[in-house]
Amino acid sequence: MTSDVRYEWRAIHSKRPLASIETSPMPEPSCRSVAIIGLGLLGGSVALSIRRRWPSVRLTACARSPETRALALDRSIVDEVFESPDGAANGCDLAVIATPVNRIASLAQTLAGQFPELTLTDVGSTKGGLVRELADSSAAKQFVPAHPIAGSEKSGAEHASAELFDDKPIVLTPSGEELPHHVNRATEFWRATGGRIVTMPAEEHDATLALTSHLPHLLSSLAARQITPSMLSLVGTGWLDTTRVAAGDADLWTAIVSENREAILGAIQQSQTDLSTLHSIVTQGDDEALRTWLETAKQIRLDAPT
Amino acid sequence: MTSDVRYEWRAIHSKRPLASIETSPMPEPSCRSVAIIGLGLLGGSVALSIRRRWPSVRLTACARSPETRALALDRSIVDEVFESPDGAANGCDLAVIATPVNRIASLAQTLAGQFPELTLTDVGSTKGGLVRELADSSAAKQFVPAHPIAGSEKSGAEHASAELFDDKPIVLTPSGEELPHHVNRATEFWRATGGRIVTMPAEEHDATLALTSHLPHLLSSLAARQITPSMLSLVGTGWLDTTRVAAGDADLWTAIVSENREAILGAIQQSQTDLSTLHSIVTQGDDEALRTWLETAKQIRLDAPT
Repeated sequence: MTSDVRYEWRAIHSKRPLASIETSPMPEPSCRSVAIIGLGLLGGSVALSIRRRWPSVRLTACARSPETRALALDRSIVDEVFESPDGAANGCDLAVIATPVNRIASLAQTLAGQFPELTLTDVGSTKGGLVRELADSSAAKQFVPAHPIAGSEKSGAEHASAELFDDKPIVLTPSGEELPHHVNRATEFWRATGGRIVTMPAEEHDATLALTSHLPHLLSSLAARQITPSMLSLVGTGWLDTTRVAAGDADLWTAIVSENREAILGAIQQSQTDLSTLHSIVTQGDDEALRTWLETAKQIRLDAPT
Repeated sequence: MTSDVRYEWRAIHSKRPLASIETSPMPEPSCRSVAIIGLGLLGGSVALSIRRRWPSVRLTACARSPETRALALDRSIVDEVFESPDGAANGCDLAVIATPVNRIASLAQTLAGQFPELTLTDVGSTKGGLVRELADSSAAKQFVPAHPIAGSEKSGAEHASAELFDDKPIVLTPSGEELPHHVNRATEFWRATGGRIVTMPAEEHDATLALTSHLPHLLSSLAARQITPSMLSLVGTGWLDTTRVAAGDADLWTAIVSENREAILGAIQQSQTDLSTLHSIVTQGDDEALRTWLETAKQIRLDAPT
């Protein structure tokens, strides 16, 4: 950590744009070089947000498609691109695994085996299965599980944004096996993306996210599925907002549901019970009960951060 | 109706701003004066959008609260305000009833009785009950049922906008009893708000809207109701979008559900069946079926107008 004065001196003498000064002074980077494994919307946005706050850090990325690798260089999302994860991670202090959630554990184990000093973190939206899978492995000492709660129905590095994580919660779910310097490095790194750090056990994260993210996504898809194409000319902003996330990537969401099945089943059952309650209220024409049912939802929504 | 040249001449010589020329040439107004009965978000937005396209038309409004009447004059939403509907409608060519849906029929009957030349229309989001209630009455000759599909989770004239109806569907559901000059006048009027006119039977409107608007609203409330206040710090843009309309007015939505109960019950049952299907798929861990379930929703959403 360093003083604001020293930070500004370094930024002023850098050849990078001075935008980072205008946001908020950041401590000295906790890493000199960072690898992004998987360059989609999240991986690309991690790179762009780190560039903004830590302009001196060298960024590498691994991406399977040649088009993505070309785009990453053309748009200066990263400094160097590789086809293989170990190519990108070689010589780095920290690697962010930003692949679909079902590929994170095996990548973490491979990279930890090759690079014992590397700090590992990820962007996976479910955490319990990952923590269980890595438990008691040497990778568990290096891997700091993270879930930045930010996204979009759009996917791909071409939609990446340096502002995606600004003021968004970054949930860290440490297993307790991590070595402290990896936790510190990963925490500083995530703070530099612009997000705010929240720490909780993996199981609590998954149960909460089943209700705050996974179920809403499924209900959004449910709402979209009830109409026929000929009705689309009559949808209003209500339908468009409620179903916005239903346009998200079906493979990605299949993997999320698969990884967090038990908690999501509980959330679906809870919503089925509440939908049955609503059905009874409407059948009976009980306007007072319906008003209360709607009012409860309204109060929760109005209390949400904007 | 008139030529564009004559329209432009009139607009250029008017003291009003010329914004109306910049949008699109409009025919000569079909009314000289219009009353807005009920000055909430929709009533206020009707007034502002008509001012923009038909600057020469005199606008009056009836609002129950003194604060709303003061706001309407302060912001020049209308030219004159009244406490009573007949005060506002007196001497007008057309009146828009923009009250909650359960008050429209009786207001239409009262105003038709007092002003036999007045064209009546409304903004109610359900239409079948209204058409049935007015059937064979003298009011049915004057009343052109309308539903502008535009809105916001915000309510009140203070959130009114001149652009609310731009390119939005305005559904007219004539019963067939209306006198043709009332239909023509109301159609021209609604076109002047910036919306696009769609005509269909009231029953078809209600069945469609149960699926495109009412059910999505209830599913949005359902999603909001599943979380506890302590989880709000972890919600992301997905939850915020999916639940946005749940912040809407509970009284207004209670009235809508009450007016369109049968169609909404059918929509709830349809969604219960689909939610049971989803529950089975997730229980079985059938990833291929889940991907297809999500993909169907995605395709519908991607085909929606933006």
